[in-house]
Amino acid sequence: MIAFLPLCAHPNPKKVLIVGGGDGGVAREISKHPLVEEIVQVEIDEKVIDVSKEYLPFMSEGFSSPKLTLRICDGFEYMRKHQAEFDVIVTDSSDPIGPAVNLFTESYFALLKKALKCDGIVCSQAGAVWVGIDHAKATMEHCKKHFGVVKYALTSVPTYPTGQIGFLVGSLDKDNVLEQPKRVFSENELDEMNLRYYNSDVHKSAFVLPNFVRRIFQI
Amino acid sequence: MIAFLPLCAHPNPKKVLIVGGGDGGVAREISKHPLVEEIVQVEIDEKVIDVSKEYLPFMSEGFSSPKLTLRICDGFEYMRKHQAEFDVIVTDSSDPIGPAVNLFTESYFALLKKALKCDGIVCSQAGAVWVGIDHAKATMEHCKKHFGVVKYALTSVPTYPTGQIGFLVGSLDKDNVLEQPKRVFSENELDEMNLRYYNSDVHKSAFVLPNFVRRIFQI
Repeated sequence: MIAFLPLCAHPNPKKVLIVGGGDGGVAREISKHPLVEEIVQVEIDEKVIDVSKEYLPFMSEGFSSPKLTLRICDGFEYMRKHQAEFDVIVTDSSDPIGPAVNLFTESYFALLKKALKCDGIVCSQAGAVWVGIDHAKATMEHCKKHFGVVKYALTSVPTYPTGQIGFLVGSLDKDNVLEQPKRVFSENELDEMNLRYYNSDVHKSAFVLPNFVRRIFQI
Repeated sequence: MIAFLPLCAHPNPKKVLIVGGGDGGVAREISKHPLVEEIVQVEIDEKVIDVSKEYLPFMSEGFSSPKLTLRICDGFEYMRKHQAEFDVIVTDSSDPIGPAVNLFTESYFALLKKALKCDGIVCSQAGAVWVGIDHAKATMEHCKKHFGVVKYALTSVPTYPTGQIGFLVGSLDKDNVLEQPKRVFSENELDEMNLRYYNSDVHKSAFVLPNFVRRIFQI
């Protein structure tokens, strides 16, 4: 979902940046999208990749995608040198505690904006609504200062605390209706890509939020 | 959700039966619906109610609803004596292991059908899709033998294993589009009923299923 929500919300996602995502799962999924031509992944900690290659081969197979260029470096540094380059940037980080805390700040979203093309889209892991909803709201507010439209989407992740994870999706094009997938895949296409969760209806419904979340987010 | 999904899928849910639900939470929610006039709850184990009254007052407050008649008896016995009486029957059971196993059988759905009026609706707890999906599918098949239309809906329940729970919703009226709420509440009405999760969009999207679930259920 962190891959296909932003990809399908974009009309033509040719070049994608992944920040983090050291297990390789996001690269694996993004490389499936037929319009994606080039993926750059910046991971600060090479050991995450090594461990994934050893213990999570079904995730780390993403690193063998011919579309992928993997760089072991600081995402902040990388983006400062690569401006107006990307259609989509996915931040696949750990929770906002310790090393990942900078990936939830307003200055991070300012940096993302500059690294994107003028109609670019970001998608970031943004916690759970059952715990830490205030932090998710604050992250949305940071993003809104730099992006024309910002939405929150939910998906079931049984291994994550509370069994659900939230994503922030933001577009520089304020007229982009993010809930509406720009590319609708047929059953056959979904099968060929081995997409076991995502489909166009799941895309739309991911943005439907329970009352208490709508109220807190003032949506 | 186990309360408002079937209630809002029904055009006029006046009389409701709850099977199980000894903590009182389902009675609390069903009693909120403005069209519901009468609720009968059959719970086989009075101790569940006593414990809930002592330790879960925010749930057991449902027992003080003036709409509710509480009976301590076997739901099977009760339904054999009360035929063609109910608009909606909610089965709020534990998982299909041990005492609750009979609430997932074909003969149970045959009994539910007889206790319902001709356009009646059932809603049952039906496990999780991440574990035990085969059992959920089998329960759906049992229900389909007696009900004109049967759907599966998902909701986030952080305290349940995998963080998600599935409901089977079945209608004797084969033309009932269960995904479409018959009663759409305004923001004010949702507030007045203190519905913190359910709204009409959540109703529709609850029936949207991930690919792997659609395939297994052959929907």
